[in-house]
Amino acid sequence: MSDTANPAEKPAEKIVTACIVVIGNEVLSGRTRDANIGFLAGELGKLGVRTMECRVIPDIEARIVETVNEVRRKFDYVFTTGGIGPTHDDITADCIAMAFGVGISENAEAVDRMTRYYGEAALFTPARRRMSRIPHGGILVDNPVSVAPGFQMENVFTFAGIPRIVEGMFGAMKHRLVGGAPMISRTVRTNQPEGLIAEQLGALQGRYADIDIGSYPGFRNGHPSVQLVMRGTDDARLAAASAELQAFLKAMGGEAEEFVQ
Amino acid sequence: MSDTANPAEKPAEKIVTACIVVIGNEVLSGRTRDANIGFLAGELGKLGVRTMECRVIPDIEARIVETVNEVRRKFDYVFTTGGIGPTHDDITADCIAMAFGVGISENAEAVDRMTRYYGEAALFTPARRRMSRIPHGGILVDNPVSVAPGFQMENVFTFAGIPRIVEGMFGAMKHRLVGGAPMISRTVRTNQPEGLIAEQLGALQGRYADIDIGSYPGFRNGHPSVQLVMRGTDDARLAAASAELQAFLKAMGGEAEEFVQ
Repeated sequence: MSDTANPAEKPAEKIVTACIVVIGNEVLSGRTRDANIGFLAGELGKLGVRTMECRVIPDIEARIVETVNEVRRKFDYVFTTGGIGPTHDDITADCIAMAFGVGISENAEAVDRMTRYYGEAALFTPARRRMSRIPHGGILVDNPVSVAPGFQMENVFTFAGIPRIVEGMFGAMKHRLVGGAPMISRTVRTNQPEGLIAEQLGALQGRYADIDIGSYPGFRNGHPSVQLVMRGTDDARLAAASAELQAFLKAMGGEAEEFVQ
Repeated sequence: MSDTANPAEKPAEKIVTACIVVIGNEVLSGRTRDANIGFLAGELGKLGVRTMECRVIPDIEARIVETVNEVRRKFDYVFTTGGIGPTHDDITADCIAMAFGVGISENAEAVDRMTRYYGEAALFTPARRRMSRIPHGGILVDNPVSVAPGFQMENVFTFAGIPRIVEGMFGAMKHRLVGGAPMISRTVRTNQPEGLIAEQLGALQGRYADIDIGSYPGFRNGHPSVQLVMRGTDDARLAAASAELQAFLKAMGGEAEEFVQ
């Protein structure tokens, strides 16, 4: 059944990876704060797909093509957001076609959906009709908000940029993704500063190599506050690490409040 | 005075570019929403430095080293955020030293500042002392919030991850940056859907090649709303483009509300 040397050993879980590519000058100018990375990374994690990198790039053809071609070979899944609307700055679909070396033209199913949605011909303008152009070989991704579809080319999913539409498109296609074991996490918040807990925390990480322990300092009601996040795929291990962590925080007189996420 | 063929022509303005590298598993897990990209990109724009790319990468040594080495050669300035605290997952300073092929050790000035800040030796723990380790050749970046400094290696600036500290560090070092002409923008909001204005908008972009016109659809009080953003370095040109834009939106019976940013 297994070709590993020792079939009694649990085979290493395949880690399924993703890269999110945000296409848009408005994020790079600081004008718009991206909301899609947080949403997609969180949802992918639930499906056992780990987001290993995100990039924000401008609406420049060469940059989009080269970025997509680089990351689609490095990661199991790629999600792009932005640039598939009806205006002159919407160049993502053409760039994806270029990246895959295929043509692009109106997709009959997309035209059909949009014709039904817009009804009268006067509203289905040439600009809107451009949104039915799909790279050849692309599989449509439904848009439950405003109909004009996204699409999948091999392992690359191309979504709109509006967060509400990204959420709808992701919901419509997520059954196509094959993830590994879902990542789960436990978080312990403490009022103890990092500088006083770092040594014991490092030792805890040493004892739990299968768990990723992150320390995120910040402020809470104006006072320093640290969130210690344990992430992994086995909740029993997370619970054990969390218990040890809480014990040492309390032993030093600190707060230790656990959240299960 | 000029070595261009036609000295009467205005020489092309040098475009000064930046890349922001966010280092942190917490953003990739979707747990934390990054706030540093928006802040830095906005501030850099005011100084005439254009953010051309952002990357979010995990706390993995090889990924940090290879990303920093790639982007520091491609962009005029690089800013990293995250991973310079006292805990085991804070590996950024070591990775920057590795990327530049230099050693890293306690910096006397950093130790001095932190000794004064923490006062008694019991509070200046070995973990906190780790934060005084600076790659050799690094120039300190002041930290007006919690003292432990960031640093500059050639064109790479390494900041903490906490937004309040990033803001403080940026304020403390921004005089070191040499930018081009500041980017300025005018925004016109309309209730006209993109699909009905796309054609005229594309023609306007064609007449104003020196301006970047972006169209950002969204929702406002539940109704579709589009922000049309004109960005460039010459406000007279922005004003002219904005006037034409407002005129055609009003001619089609639409709203046209201008914001100067």
